[in-house]
Amino acid sequence: MDNKEKKPLSTLNRNRNRNRNRNKPEELALEYHSRYRGKIETGLKAPVTSYDDFAIWYTPGVAEPSREISLDRERVYEYTNKGNSVAIVTDGTRVLGLGDVGPEAALPVMEGKAMLFKYLGGVDAFPICVATKDAEEIIRVVKWIAPSFGGVNLEDIASPKCYYILERLRAELTIPVWHDDQQGTALVILAGLINGLKVVGKKMEDITVSLIGAGAANMNVARYLHLAGVKWGNMIMVDSRGILNPAREDLRGESGNGNKWEMCRLTNSECRSGGIKEAMYHSDVCIALSTPGPGVIKKEWVADMADDAIVFACANPVPEIMPPEAKEGGARIVATGRSDFPNQVNNSLGFPAVFRGALDVRASRITDGMCIAAAYAIASYAEEQGLSEDYIIPRMGEREMYVREAVAVGMKAMAEGVAMVQLSEAELEDEVRERMDIER
Amino acid sequence: MDNKEKKPLSTLNRNRNRNRNRNKPEELALEYHSRYRGKIETGLKAPVTSYDDFAIWYTPGVAEPSREISLDRERVYEYTNKGNSVAIVTDGTRVLGLGDVGPEAALPVMEGKAMLFKYLGGVDAFPICVATKDAEEIIRVVKWIAPSFGGVNLEDIASPKCYYILERLRAELTIPVWHDDQQGTALVILAGLINGLKVVGKKMEDITVSLIGAGAANMNVARYLHLAGVKWGNMIMVDSRGILNPAREDLRGESGNGNKWEMCRLTNSECRSGGIKEAMYHSDVCIALSTPGPGVIKKEWVADMADDAIVFACANPVPEIMPPEAKEGGARIVATGRSDFPNQVNNSLGFPAVFRGALDVRASRITDGMCIAAAYAIASYAEEQGLSEDYIIPRMGEREMYVREAVAVGMKAMAEGVAMVQLSEAELEDEVRERMDIER
Repeated sequence: MDNKEKKPLSTLNRNRNRNRNRNKPEELALEYHSRYRGKIETGLKAPVTSYDDFAIWYTPGVAEPSREISLDRERVYEYTNKGNSVAIVTDGTRVLGLGDVGPEAALPVMEGKAMLFKYLGGVDAFPICVATKDAEEIIRVVKWIAPSFGGVNLEDIASPKCYYILERLRAELTIPVWHDDQQGTALVILAGLINGLKVVGKKMEDITVSLIGAGAANMNVARYLHLAGVKWGNMIMVDSRGILNPAREDLRGESGNGNKWEMCRLTNSECRSGGIKEAMYHSDVCIALSTPGPGVIKKEWVADMADDAIVFACANPVPEIMPPEAKEGGARIVATGRSDFPNQVNNSLGFPAVFRGALDVRASRITDGMCIAAAYAIASYAEEQGLSEDYIIPRMGEREMYVREAVAVGMKAMAEGVAMVQLSEAELEDEVRERMDIER
Repeated sequence: MDNKEKKPLSTLNRNRNRNRNRNKPEELALEYHSRYRGKIETGLKAPVTSYDDFAIWYTPGVAEPSREISLDRERVYEYTNKGNSVAIVTDGTRVLGLGDVGPEAALPVMEGKAMLFKYLGGVDAFPICVATKDAEEIIRVVKWIAPSFGGVNLEDIASPKCYYILERLRAELTIPVWHDDQQGTALVILAGLINGLKVVGKKMEDITVSLIGAGAANMNVARYLHLAGVKWGNMIMVDSRGILNPAREDLRGESGNGNKWEMCRLTNSECRSGGIKEAMYHSDVCIALSTPGPGVIKKEWVADMADDAIVFACANPVPEIMPPEAKEGGARIVATGRSDFPNQVNNSLGFPAVFRGALDVRASRITDGMCIAAAYAIASYAEEQGLSEDYIIPRMGEREMYVREAVAVGMKAMAEGVAMVQLSEAELEDEVRERMDIER
């Protein structure tokens, strides 16, 4: 029995505030998760004012929308919540910093993600934690459950199968499929970089970028940097065995999306070799999405970077180098995944509004163009607030940013011809605001 | 753009009431479904009072419950909503009276079901409409998505594959799996019959029952009647080709659960043959779950029944015989699926409370014993209100009934050893009331 469950929130919050000085979120998390026994529930979207209403919402009335949809399947978007529903699909093989913990242990994380989807984007997401790690089976289950959903968010699926799963599902489904660890992280980093370069007065076309880590996230960062103007040859990527270059015989012949061999051929025109230290040498920007620090990146290596260096140290929970240390090394701008330092690179700035925009124009897919548009919308919002070395990217609470981003994504979808619905910008903004519950 | 969406409900209801005299639910359904674009959404079960709370509900805090579950998988019931989540799974092959309309057209019905689960039972249900009609594939998808759910409600899946799917999933999953068209309908009919017999002063052991229709529902009705005391030989079942008896060569050799050949052997000890008329002759009770009427059952055939006859004419939307006609034929008690006549046999009296009880003691399955206990709890609640020919079963709005039923189901699960959690009856009732939001 958990009689505390319905305790007024005011009480809970009083206790929490009292505890805050001595308890960190990690310590409160078990207590709070246990108290509420989960974080999401099924809500009623339509009113029930009396039992008679079920004659409309259920039998006999419901036969009518059902029949209409059977005659024209697209009308499922008109009569049901499909168009606002997103499946958060994981096999639990790469959960946070915990690794392969399985589908049950992934559930609290996916419920948290669903909270963020709803709170920030007005999107109804539902966790689907699957009891198989086989790529073909994951593809099959997602295709089978697709009729209930307007979109799919793949989450915390190990690399390299995540590339293949994403690619196959994008090709075989007509609803947007997204892997947050690929597209989401990359677009938020791109947004930060756009503004970081403005602050230090450099241009995409000119910079050299060291990429520490060659996982799903950094693979996509590299692609987006290229789309934003960074030259392939000016990127230097490092994996756990060293810098990627054509001499890396261990990688020769890898194929498919996101493969390292492609990066060996495209990047690093100087043909550098070595490790993180050598990759960072004289680079303007370092983007690390590797293993938790501290000490993965040394202060001296930051000192070796070009003047006005920008460092993204995004490992969680501990960055590859802590911001004060990176600053001591000479970095002018430092961004991390942490909320307790300036410039938090937070995926939550991306996925809720990207899906909002994609769903509201009923996009059949989320293109690179839509992601780049999202990054520029995030960046321009922050620029209007006034950029500084400690503010290159908006904070999570800046809600107008989400509206701007969602509208940019939806407009781009229409421009690229992947939207099933055509709206004017004003109509789209109205729709976005209504769904996000943000007044003009 | 649907600017009406957030119109205050008071306005909507005023309009609706004004329209009620000229519009039937069927006519309002399209307008209302379109206005709300679906009936369920993702709600936040835990409070978010500031963006800082996400440090508890999401990273970094969420890693703690995730880690705990990875060490002990059962704790997923403590830290997530799994234990209150039910998948409503359909392939859309037998939706309402509409037949095989496909998974998209089934979605409004499943959303309506989810509303009922929540409104009546405090259960968080989610529609999973699958894009396959293959029994093995449906079994596979349900097993793959099971980690997210504490129970499975199969719905509107065509017979005979529904028997096989239910049987396999019950054997292979450790969470309750239920097919509402089998177990749900049958237990509510049994509840009505228990009280009907009290009103007319007959006993289960003595009665003869004609069963019109040999689909999933009536197959289970027959099993439950037997468990409640009706003699197999005193049941006479009719399918579209006539009365089931050992001479039915077309059915010989069918195997598996719910097969008609088993019924040919077990029932009809007089070895009657013929059609509906012959089956009903001199029977005390007629339970029809066949094809929509009117005219499927004739008044004269009711007149041929024994004195104090009881007729369940449960086809939707139009009963096999309309109640006034059945009464003219001499039936003393008539029950239908309709809310506009007395004695509505409504599945909603069953599944929400059955799942409530099963989830609250974490039952690994829903046994026949639990279903029979539910039927007796429903019946005894109605009896306390005072039985009559026009009141053998509670109405949907009698909320205390659901509490009683859920507690009976949970107690039975513990008694039968299928509950993972042991509670006293008082503790169970507290839990049920809290989840259903019904005060003592």
